[in-house]
Amino acid sequence: MDWFRQTISRRVLLSATIALGLAGNIHPASAQTDPLPSWNDGTVKSSIIDFVARVKKEGGTDFVKPEERLATFDNDGTLWSEQPFYYQGVFALDQIKALAPSHPEWKTTQPFQSVLEGDMAGVMKSGEKGLTEIIAVSASGMSTDQFNKTVADWFATAREPRFKRPYGEMIFQPMLELLTYLRSNGFQTYIVSGGGVEFMRVYAEKAYGIPPQQVVGSSGVVKFELGTEGKPVLIKQPKIEFVDDGPGKPVGINRFIGRQPIFAFGNSDGDLQMLQYAAARKGASFQGLVHHTDAEREWAYDRASKVGTLDKALDAATANGWTVVDMKRDWKVIFPPLK
Amino acid sequence: MDWFRQTISRRVLLSATIALGLAGNIHPASAQTDPLPSWNDGTVKSSIIDFVARVKKEGGTDFVKPEERLATFDNDGTLWSEQPFYYQGVFALDQIKALAPSHPEWKTTQPFQSVLEGDMAGVMKSGEKGLTEIIAVSASGMSTDQFNKTVADWFATAREPRFKRPYGEMIFQPMLELLTYLRSNGFQTYIVSGGGVEFMRVYAEKAYGIPPQQVVGSSGVVKFELGTEGKPVLIKQPKIEFVDDGPGKPVGINRFIGRQPIFAFGNSDGDLQMLQYAAARKGASFQGLVHHTDAEREWAYDRASKVGTLDKALDAATANGWTVVDMKRDWKVIFPPLK
Repeated sequence: MDWFRQTISRRVLLSATIALGLAGNIHPASAQTDPLPSWNDGTVKSSIIDFVARVKKEGGTDFVKPEERLATFDNDGTLWSEQPFYYQGVFALDQIKALAPSHPEWKTTQPFQSVLEGDMAGVMKSGEKGLTEIIAVSASGMSTDQFNKTVADWFATAREPRFKRPYGEMIFQPMLELLTYLRSNGFQTYIVSGGGVEFMRVYAEKAYGIPPQQVVGSSGVVKFELGTEGKPVLIKQPKIEFVDDGPGKPVGINRFIGRQPIFAFGNSDGDLQMLQYAAARKGASFQGLVHHTDAEREWAYDRASKVGTLDKALDAATANGWTVVDMKRDWKVIFPPLK
Repeated sequence: MDWFRQTISRRVLLSATIALGLAGNIHPASAQTDPLPSWNDGTVKSSIIDFVARVKKEGGTDFVKPEERLATFDNDGTLWSEQPFYYQGVFALDQIKALAPSHPEWKTTQPFQSVLEGDMAGVMKSGEKGLTEIIAVSASGMSTDQFNKTVADWFATAREPRFKRPYGEMIFQPMLELLTYLRSNGFQTYIVSGGGVEFMRVYAEKAYGIPPQQVVGSSGVVKFELGTEGKPVLIKQPKIEFVDDGPGKPVGINRFIGRQPIFAFGNSDGDLQMLQYAAARKGASFQGLVHHTDAEREWAYDRASKVGTLDKALDAATANGWTVVDMKRDWKVIFPPLK
């Protein structure tokens, strides 16, 4: 709990300082507690702190008005882990197993047969099409309320097998500090992820302090119906509507937010266009990538990985001088203490 | 400018009061200036003020946490006028005329021929399909930046013919006060409209104080491309993607906001499902309709009107005890003083 208490007490102190109008009377050195305590000192950490200072400096050439301080974060691999298989995929597979008794035909139909036989190689062989089908089928026909409850129940009980943690705590402590740091400097923090928007919203507020309306993601078609006693319900349909990945990310940002971010963070080639989009903004902008380099404390993967491939985006980062986090070098801890 | 100065000075006073921690020391009667000065006293005004008081009262049965205080407003006919023809339609017709020289085929193709001949009856006869085609074609092939500039230029020059006002000032003063009042009580105010999301975002922040990320609307397909010098651009395609009207409004709210509103305001049958969706929320909620009853100061229309039909929603309001604004009776003024 110490990290939590420290974070809170720092925020309470800060609020009190502002409320009492005392900010100017505190000696700078004592007021400036490290806002990113789980980040090792170095060029990566200072690139973040320098950027925030520049956009905050009124009258400076890089000043950005608070309403334009939008920060967008990828989710899988950027705010939480994604190996060996996206956690929403794990959830969907668990759902297929739970629904199997009422779908006898799945025993002989791919990709469901592989799921039920625990044949992950077979599931992976079904490719993106198969995975999309699994995700769509596992939720279709449910109301959005039922789906939210199913996801919440899964988060409450399922455990990640390697680290034995609830999936909702497979999140990165240094990134939690970064989100808090940005918000305390007038930024609005958004998730912009290829993951399902409704899946993420169930845990994003508790895990990251990011409310539902600041989560942008992939979505399926949803239909409005008047249910029992004329009560409106939204029913999930087995049809993909929008894929918020790769070139879909700037499209999603344009549709949901309507303004270019000044700060964008990702970890894979699926985030390249989001970072390019932030870089194309008139005025100051920041682009960051998490490079997974720590096989011991988390996972190590990049160009050759099927999940979270980091290849073209890594080259673009080098070419454009974007910030690349080396997880092993730059992060003191990976996960927060268990709640 | 007086209304503006009054609004500002009230807000400055309020902020100063909070900042100095003096709220408890001010005599209640002197602190409580009327938050809705352009609304006549009566059941409509008091239903709004009572609702806000109830959801704010900590420990009360109707208390709603600030992060759940979401208010959604229709735009056409609710926040600004919509007669005799939706203003985005007027914009699109102006665009067709401007683009006509490079489209000689439009002289003999409907609905474009009617537009160019100024035959509004013919345009209306083309129905929703024709209007949709006009809106899609008038913007397609443009980048989102070009489109924003075109819309901004139109707002800067076009004038509404009856009242001779810029279209961006055909907005309702009482609703501006309501938006400000809700925000000063911890609400987040959203637009949820059948209008095009990118069209509305150009003027919503200036007109209503609603930033781009709090505007939900209909949208067309947009494509990410790397333009000159590898600079990302989003190009508008001639294809409708999402219609945020009728049953589409709860769908849009679910997708963009991810939480049911506690306060919903509309003016037509296209808002019925949004109001039903807010009413279905567990806990306190408010549903309001603007009934256009003032042919002299604005327009009078309801069940028989083709634009902004108010028929089923009016019956639902009666059946469910929703608040119905009688524009002539309840509003002291319609439009704000010209800027």
